[in-house]
Amino acid sequence: MARVFAHVDAHRQAFIDRLLAYVARPSISAHGIGIRKTAEFLFDYLQGLGMEARLLEGAGWPFVYGRYGESPHAPTALLYGHYDVQPPDPLDAWNSPPFEPEIRDGRIWGRGVGDNKGQHLAQLLAIESWLAVTGNLPCNVIVLLEGEEEVGSPHISDCVRDCRALLADVDLVITADGPVHESGRPCINFGPRGIASFELRAVHAQRDFHSGNWGGVAPNPIWTLVHLLATMKDSRGAVTIDGFYDNVAPLSDLERRALDALPVDLPAVMEGAGLARLDEPQERPFFDRLAAWPTFTINGFHGGYGGPGTKTVLPREATVKCDMRLVENQGVDEILDKVEAHVRRYAPEVEVVRQGGMEPSRTPLDSPYTRPLQRAFRAAQGEDPLLVPAMGGSLPDYAWTKILGVHSFTTPYANHDEANHAPNENLEVERFIAGIRTGAAVLAYLGEES
Amino acid sequence: MARVFAHVDAHRQAFIDRLLAYVARPSISAHGIGIRKTAEFLFDYLQGLGMEARLLEGAGWPFVYGRYGESPHAPTALLYGHYDVQPPDPLDAWNSPPFEPEIRDGRIWGRGVGDNKGQHLAQLLAIESWLAVTGNLPCNVIVLLEGEEEVGSPHISDCVRDCRALLADVDLVITADGPVHESGRPCINFGPRGIASFELRAVHAQRDFHSGNWGGVAPNPIWTLVHLLATMKDSRGAVTIDGFYDNVAPLSDLERRALDALPVDLPAVMEGAGLARLDEPQERPFFDRLAAWPTFTINGFHGGYGGPGTKTVLPREATVKCDMRLVENQGVDEILDKVEAHVRRYAPEVEVVRQGGMEPSRTPLDSPYTRPLQRAFRAAQGEDPLLVPAMGGSLPDYAWTKILGVHSFTTPYANHDEANHAPNENLEVERFIAGIRTGAAVLAYLGEES
Repeated sequence: MARVFAHVDAHRQAFIDRLLAYVARPSISAHGIGIRKTAEFLFDYLQGLGMEARLLEGAGWPFVYGRYGESPHAPTALLYGHYDVQPPDPLDAWNSPPFEPEIRDGRIWGRGVGDNKGQHLAQLLAIESWLAVTGNLPCNVIVLLEGEEEVGSPHISDCVRDCRALLADVDLVITADGPVHESGRPCINFGPRGIASFELRAVHAQRDFHSGNWGGVAPNPIWTLVHLLATMKDSRGAVTIDGFYDNVAPLSDLERRALDALPVDLPAVMEGAGLARLDEPQERPFFDRLAAWPTFTINGFHGGYGGPGTKTVLPREATVKCDMRLVENQGVDEILDKVEAHVRRYAPEVEVVRQGGMEPSRTPLDSPYTRPLQRAFRAAQGEDPLLVPAMGGSLPDYAWTKILGVHSFTTPYANHDEANHAPNENLEVERFIAGIRTGAAVLAYLGEES
Repeated sequence: MARVFAHVDAHRQAFIDRLLAYVARPSISAHGIGIRKTAEFLFDYLQGLGMEARLLEGAGWPFVYGRYGESPHAPTALLYGHYDVQPPDPLDAWNSPPFEPEIRDGRIWGRGVGDNKGQHLAQLLAIESWLAVTGNLPCNVIVLLEGEEEVGSPHISDCVRDCRALLADVDLVITADGPVHESGRPCINFGPRGIASFELRAVHAQRDFHSGNWGGVAPNPIWTLVHLLATMKDSRGAVTIDGFYDNVAPLSDLERRALDALPVDLPAVMEGAGLARLDEPQERPFFDRLAAWPTFTINGFHGGYGGPGTKTVLPREATVKCDMRLVENQGVDEILDKVEAHVRRYAPEVEVVRQGGMEPSRTPLDSPYTRPLQRAFRAAQGEDPLLVPAMGGSLPDYAWTKILGVHSFTTPYANHDEANHAPNENLEVERFIAGIRTGAAVLAYLGEES
C-alpha cells in the first residue's frame, strides 16, 4: 500500500489536472446536457483500465458499469457514484465559470467537483494506482456510475433489478459522496433517511369569493387544510397519523452510543442559520431528531392572495406540498397509505396526490466491513472516522440494502463547505488527494480482511 | 308625487342619456384618473340645481357636498354615494368598452353604471324632478358624494368629523348602492358587517433549508402558523380567541323574524358557485352565518415552494393574510387587540401586522324612517321591499351611525347581476328609472311623515 500511496503522491499534479478536465465536461441531467458524452468518456476510461466495461441502457440515461477481478477468495465491492451534476445557475453568483474549473486558496472550484466527480474520480484513480503499481487489485471491484442522481435516481431500482446477474456477487457498496462531518472529521455514514412526497389539495368551489358576501357561507379551503394538518402533527412535534411510528426501527446500543458520540456545536449551528430555537420536541437530542426520527415537513402552502396590502378574497382552492423523511423500517408506500387513510377519515374532500419517494436504508455498525473501512481512513488520513449511524438526508442506498440485500456505506471525501447544489461548489485539493489514498486503502483492507 | 312620476316618465330618454354621459367620464380612484374633473362636474350640477354646493377638501380626493332646504319642520336626509369606480381591467373581457356605455338587452353596460353612478344619479334626478315640478323639495336634503369608496373610504370618518357643522341637522342617511336581493325583490338594508384585516408572519431563520439536512431540527414557519391558526378557530367553525364573541349584539325579535323571512334558494346558490357544502357550522341558518355572525377568513396563506412537482425545502418564513367580518357591537380595535393577545399567548414568535378596518353598523328595523322608506318602494315599484337587518359585506355606514349618531339605510336600485367590480358591469334600464321614482317617493314620504 505504501507503494500505491507513493504513486499517488508522485502523480499528484497529473491527477488534479485529470479532475479539472473532467469537471470541465458539462453533464447536467436536469437539462439533458452532455450526459451521454460523459458516459462514453467514462466507459472508455474504465475499458482503458482493463475493466470489463458496459453502458447499461434502460429507460433513462445509461449507467456506466465496469468490473475488475473474479477472485472467489476476495470480497466484491461495488463503488457507486454519479457523473451528472446540478444545473449551475445562478451563473452570476459564481466567482469563476462553473465549467472552467480553477484552483484558488487550496480548493478546486467548479460545478460537480465535490458532488460527485471529484469523489468518484478519486475512487477510479485509486484503482488506476493499484493497477499501475501492482497490475492487480486487492479485491474484486465493480464500478457503477449513474447519470440521473441529481434528478432523484428514478431508474436505479430498475437498473439493480434488471442487472442482477452483473451484480450477483456484490458483497458491499461504497459511495463516496457528500461532505465530511461539520467538525471537519472524516466519517462513515451507515444509512440515509428515506423520503415520501405528497400534495394535499382542497378545492371547494368553481371561483373565488368576496369574503363579505360569502364569508360564513362558502367553506374556505385554507381553513380546511389548516384543520386537517393540525390533526396530522401536534404542536409538540409528534406526528399524529395512525400508525405513523409503528415501524420505526429502534437504534441498537451500538448505534445509540455512536449517535451520542457525534460532536455538535449547537450555538454555532443556530447562529449560522439565524435560528432562535430548534424544532419541537426541543428536548430530543440533536442527532436523534435529525436522523433517527422521521419528519413531516410542509415544503409549501399556497392559496388565496399573497400580494401587497389586503384583498378581501375567500379563495376557491389551496395546496400544501409535503415531504416526510422516513427512517428504517418505515416504507414509502406504507406511510403514504397511512396519510391517505388519515385524510379519508378527517377530510375526505381533500385530495392526496402521491409523488413517490425513496426508501430509508440502514447498515449495522457492526458490519464485517466497518473495520477495514475504519482502518483505511486511519491509514490514508491519519484520523479515526466518525461513525454516523443515521443521516438526515436521503440517498438511493435502499437499492443496495433492500434490493441487492448487502451492506452499504457512504464515505465522504468532500469538505463540509463544498457548496454542493449551490454556486461556487468546491473541493479542497488535499481532500481530493486524501480521497484517492483512502480509496486505495479501502481496497487493500477489504482484500486483507476477507 | 304623481306629477313628479309623470315628469320622470316624460324625461325617461333624457335621463338615460344623462347616465350614459356620466358613465362615459372615467373616474378611477385606484389609478387617480378623472377624479377631480368628475367632482367638479358634480359640483356644477348641484349648484345648477340651486343647492348650496361645496367641494370638501381633505387629505384625499374631495367629497362633493350639496344642500337644499332649511325647514325646521322637515327631516334632513343625507344621500350618500360615490363617484369613483373600480378599475375596468381585464379590458378584453368586456363586450363593449367600459367607458363607452351602450344599451343592449334592456341594460346599460359600462364601468360604474351600477356601482355607483346610476344609483346616486337616480337620487339626483329625483331631486331635479321635484324641483322642476314643484320648485321645492318635500324635506331637507344633503347630498354627499365620495371619490374614494372603491379604495376603502379612508377619509370618510375624518370628513364626517371635520364637517360636523355642515351635517349638524342630519336625521338619517340613505345610500343607494349594491344590488337588490337575489330573488329580484327590492330591499332595505339596515346594517353591514364591519371588517378587521391583519397579517400573521412567522420568520424562523435567515435562509431556507434542505428538508433532509435540517428537517426535525429547524422549526418550520408553516407548521407554526398552522398550529397557531388551529388555536384561533376550530373545525366546527367557532372562533376560539378569548372574548371574540363577547360583544356580538343579539338580534332583536324583529330582526330575528326579518332575517328568517328572507328567501334563499340554497340548491341554486350552491350550484351557481359549485359548492358541495356550506361552511361550518352547517346547521346555522344561511343568513345568520352570512350576516349576523362574525367571520374569520384566511384570505391567503403563502410560504415555501409552490411550483410544479416537488422541492425538498424547509422554508424560512410564511405569511397568512386574514380578514374578520364583524357584527354589531364588535369593534375593530377591540378585535385586533384580542387577536394580538391570543398570538402573544400561543405563538409569541409570530408577528401580527394590523391593517385596519371598518366598524360594523346596525340601524333598528323599527326606526321611524323605516315606514316612509317602505311606502316609497311600494309607491314607486309596486312591491314591498324585503327588510334585511344585517348584510354580509362591509360599507362605511359606521360613519353615520357611530360618528353622526343617526339611522342609516341602504336602498339598492341595481339588479342582482350588476357585475359590480367585474367586467360587463350593467344596470337594467327599468331599475334605473324605478330608482329615480323611488328616490322621489322617499323624499315625499319623509316629508309627509315628519
